[in-house]
Amino acid sequence: MRDFLPEQMKKKQFIEDKIRRVFEKYGYEPLQSPVVEDFDLLAAKGSGGEAIKEEIYYFKDKGDRELGLRYDMTVPLARIVASNPSLPRPFKRYVIGQVYRYDRPQAKRYREFTQADWDIIGVKSVLADFEVIQVAIDLMRSLGFEFTVKVNNRIVLEELAIKMGVKEEQIKEAFKSIDKLDKISEKGVRDEFKSKGIDDSVLEQIFVNSFDEVKARIGETESLKELEQLLELAKDNDYNEVKFELSLARGLEYYTGVVFEISINDGPSVAGGGRYDKLIGLYGGQDSPAVGCSFGVDRLFDNLEKELVMGPNTDVFIIPMSDNAFSFSTKLSRKLRETGISVELDLMGRNVKKNFEYVNKKGISFVIVIGENEVKSERFKVKEMASGSEKEFQINDLSKILGFIKGQ
Amino acid sequence: MRDFLPEQMKKKQFIEDKIRRVFEKYGYEPLQSPVVEDFDLLAAKGSGGEAIKEEIYYFKDKGDRELGLRYDMTVPLARIVASNPSLPRPFKRYVIGQVYRYDRPQAKRYREFTQADWDIIGVKSVLADFEVIQVAIDLMRSLGFEFTVKVNNRIVLEELAIKMGVKEEQIKEAFKSIDKLDKISEKGVRDEFKSKGIDDSVLEQIFVNSFDEVKARIGETESLKELEQLLELAKDNDYNEVKFELSLARGLEYYTGVVFEISINDGPSVAGGGRYDKLIGLYGGQDSPAVGCSFGVDRLFDNLEKELVMGPNTDVFIIPMSDNAFSFSTKLSRKLRETGISVELDLMGRNVKKNFEYVNKKGISFVIVIGENEVKSERFKVKEMASGSEKEFQINDLSKILGFIKGQ
Repeated sequence: MRDFLPEQMKKKQFIEDKIRRVFEKYGYEPLQSPVVEDFDLLAAKGSGGEAIKEEIYYFKDKGDRELGLRYDMTVPLARIVASNPSLPRPFKRYVIGQVYRYDRPQAKRYREFTQADWDIIGVKSVLADFEVIQVAIDLMRSLGFEFTVKVNNRIVLEELAIKMGVKEEQIKEAFKSIDKLDKISEKGVRDEFKSKGIDDSVLEQIFVNSFDEVKARIGETESLKELEQLLELAKDNDYNEVKFELSLARGLEYYTGVVFEISINDGPSVAGGGRYDKLIGLYGGQDSPAVGCSFGVDRLFDNLEKELVMGPNTDVFIIPMSDNAFSFSTKLSRKLRETGISVELDLMGRNVKKNFEYVNKKGISFVIVIGENEVKSERFKVKEMASGSEKEFQINDLSKILGFIKGQ
Repeated sequence: MRDFLPEQMKKKQFIEDKIRRVFEKYGYEPLQSPVVEDFDLLAAKGSGGEAIKEEIYYFKDKGDRELGLRYDMTVPLARIVASNPSLPRPFKRYVIGQVYRYDRPQAKRYREFTQADWDIIGVKSVLADFEVIQVAIDLMRSLGFEFTVKVNNRIVLEELAIKMGVKEEQIKEAFKSIDKLDKISEKGVRDEFKSKGIDDSVLEQIFVNSFDEVKARIGETESLKELEQLLELAKDNDYNEVKFELSLARGLEYYTGVVFEISINDGPSVAGGGRYDKLIGLYGGQDSPAVGCSFGVDRLFDNLEKELVMGPNTDVFIIPMSDNAFSFSTKLSRKLRETGISVELDLMGRNVKKNFEYVNKKGISFVIVIGENEVKSERFKVKEMASGSEKEFQINDLSKILGFIKGQ
């Protein structure tokens, strides 16, 4: 787990603010749930079960209740939707918050990390699949990334695999191997198919990766039509980042339709998601169609930290030269802040030279020095650091000062 | 622990955004630390020690390391400052985040709650004490509260108590009783003093609560002068909410100077803080003067939830009448969002009547219906819900549409 010191945290916050703004442009609304959840709930999703204890922060409270720190944002969402049947449909929520995994520590892998998730509950239409992907694209563009969105449909892959001789009961294992393609390469996947006794003719199709060939093999199934419609909407909207990728299976078994993954070009995967129509039912709610996506904010941060340059929050720095200047200086800073300007006061009682060093280091643009004369005359100069130019004002000239500072 | 559903979370976020804006107007910078801390660190502060296990979420990880969920934001701050000696001075940080206490559940007491903290590290001057209080005032005003800031100085109270016959070794117990004044009233405090064998003549002073009388008793001590200067700065700035309150001791022993507490008038206490010059040293750093304040965001939320009315995030709602309208509708929504407008698309395939019900319920101001004709002609009407007036546009009239929507 790591601390984000101010220089880093300002950048992380910049990223999170951008993300939030994108969510709001699509009408998503925020939801907050506790970091601690019942262990039973955490274990229910996917094939986790008891085994998940090894991968999460698990503990008992004083009442011997089994608890854990949430390891994703989908479980809390499913719990909340299942237990609040009156939530309107579509239910479009976003969340930016911390999740926890008890991984072995590695470089660039953290046990606490920030996820930005958005999901649409209650919609079966491909429009929802498309919108979730569209949000991801908007988000990556707003942060200036070049990126690729790989899209597939798990059912299409399943239909193709069965067609090509994979047995129903082998699907799970076959997908596990296909998912490793990036890691173990073509030969590795072939070897695994062989050793598992799975017909590997489906792999030809995967390496060719042609939508039309898949269509020719399995025909116009429901899932294929959905996928086709999705790819067409992406094309109509000039989303050239979107690519069909038949090898994308995404391990998590709970996906029931479209799946996708976003990677920085020549860089890591930063997000993934898909449709999961059975999960809400698993949490005791009525079955409800659902599609969503999850971004790793830490990965975005790690990729942007070096290029991002954050300006100072502070517009004006006021230097009271002695205790006698405190009263006037605090009044002036208060009035300036009331106009919406950010003001810092020298709290350290440093001399003027040291203060100017501080101001330059921080990149603050304007300085006001308050000495005996300024207190007596109630007039003071505002100095622009870049040009060195100064202008005299009195305390009630607020709109003039604002004009000088904002360059109007 | 509780969930914040969207209607609530929008309000909580509104409050947090206001708070953050106030922090930034004073040049505070954000800091983020993990929710999980080493138990040793959590136990080090104040008189906590092992006993604190009962009040916090304590557990061991798989490596048998003793951990806990943070119960405040001061411990992580002290740890970070102690272990990062190169952080600039003054170090002014803010944080808005979750903390955890294992309280017995009660109405309006939560085991997970949000704190907004701001602290100044490295400054001994009363200017820092004043600024921390000033931020609290700004924050309460920005949220529209009527409130009181009670201010005292623990050293002044201690000096007075000693002067009035309380023995040095009784101070701790005396303060504990004084702190209960609100709960057990004057008589209760008197009874406790008697049963503890403490001279109770200091209580007269406390009930009289006159700064001048205290000054007459203990003289112009360093601490008294600080407190006087602070109260004068408040007066100079017309902060009529600030009141001297001699009975304010604030239990936590780590306070070493000014202490203060903010309450909503006729309502609960929502924040408190003070000076704690010894804490950083306790965490292995160089002793460093420090002053800070902590707001309970949940209490602010609970007090504002009913009055706050949040508008919709969405400006425009687009209704595609059929699958054939998907392509045009997604393009239009994309282009509108690129201008900065928030747009929702009907994902549910509802009929027009149902969609208008949804739009009215959400309070969305503008609607566009895309049917066969609109797709063919590439012209469509934007309807303003309040007035019922409509205006026709085509897809490239973006600035005109923006003008119509923003009322320019």
